[in-house]
Amino acid sequence: MADRCVFCEIVAGASPASVVHADEQVLAIMDIQPVNPGHLLVIPRRHVVGLADLPEDLGSAMWSTAHRLAGAVRRSGLRCEGINLFLADGEAAFQEVFHVHLHVVPRFRGDTFRLSADWRVRDRDLLDSDAAALREAFSG
Amino acid sequence: MADRCVFCEIVAGASPASVVHADEQVLAIMDIQPVNPGHLLVIPRRHVVGLADLPEDLGSAMWSTAHRLAGAVRRSGLRCEGINLFLADGEAAFQEVFHVHLHVVPRFRGDTFRLSADWRVRDRDLLDSDAAALREAFSG
Repeated sequence: MADRCVFCEIVAGASPASVVHADEQVLAIMDIQPVNPGHLLVIPRRHVVGLADLPEDLGSAMWSTAHRLAGAVRRSGLRCEGINLFLADGEAAFQEVFHVHLHVVPRFRGDTFRLSADWRVRDRDLLDSDAAALREAFSG
Repeated sequence: MADRCVFCEIVAGASPASVVHADEQVLAIMDIQPVNPGHLLVIPRRHVVGLADLPEDLGSAMWSTAHRLAGAVRRSGLRCEGINLFLADGEAAFQEVFHVHLHVVPRFRGDTFRLSADWRVRDRDLLDSDAAALREAFSG
């Protein structure tokens, strides 16, 4: 347990949470500042900061739980016309709690969630050179 | 293969793509309209629309590949101070190509990606009733 980690405190039962699922590896809890009602966080019991220190099997347990929860959100009666799964790894990627967590967000038309970026079509030769750099790193 | 599905065409080799990884189950390709250079999509070879028709093992293969790619992006030399993983399931959740795909997005301070929502703290009694509805649906 990391000092003053809000998610470690929840795992330890020292802070309140609205728990949807708990097993040996992960917990699923309600986000207290939801994008929409039903917004869940899947967290590992172990204190893991992000993707780099997340063991592959523990990440798979988080994913599988999120995948099954997505179905549960759709069946729950809560307003849900779509689902976003979102993970922020690192402060530059909007991570705010440094105990890895996977968001499961119910969505509906007209909700307040927005994404924006300077999306532009990238030239194929640049995409190919990006891909070459990534292939080398992936196999290395 | 679904008619006129851009990702099925890529899987079939009928449309160009900058491929970073390919195995029996999934492909990882460059997003042609990246949030930032290095933005990847992990897609299953099979035509699967979204989370509801995605077999659990195929979803796990997508996740594991994305997790390992996140490490590759950080090692690649491309600008990367953080990573977002993002999946849009359904039009209301901003899905645009109806062949399931998991985004792996390199992030850095000062990039153009923004998220917004009307985030408000939700009362504990409401979180608890949301959680109760989700527990019932999850176990059902």
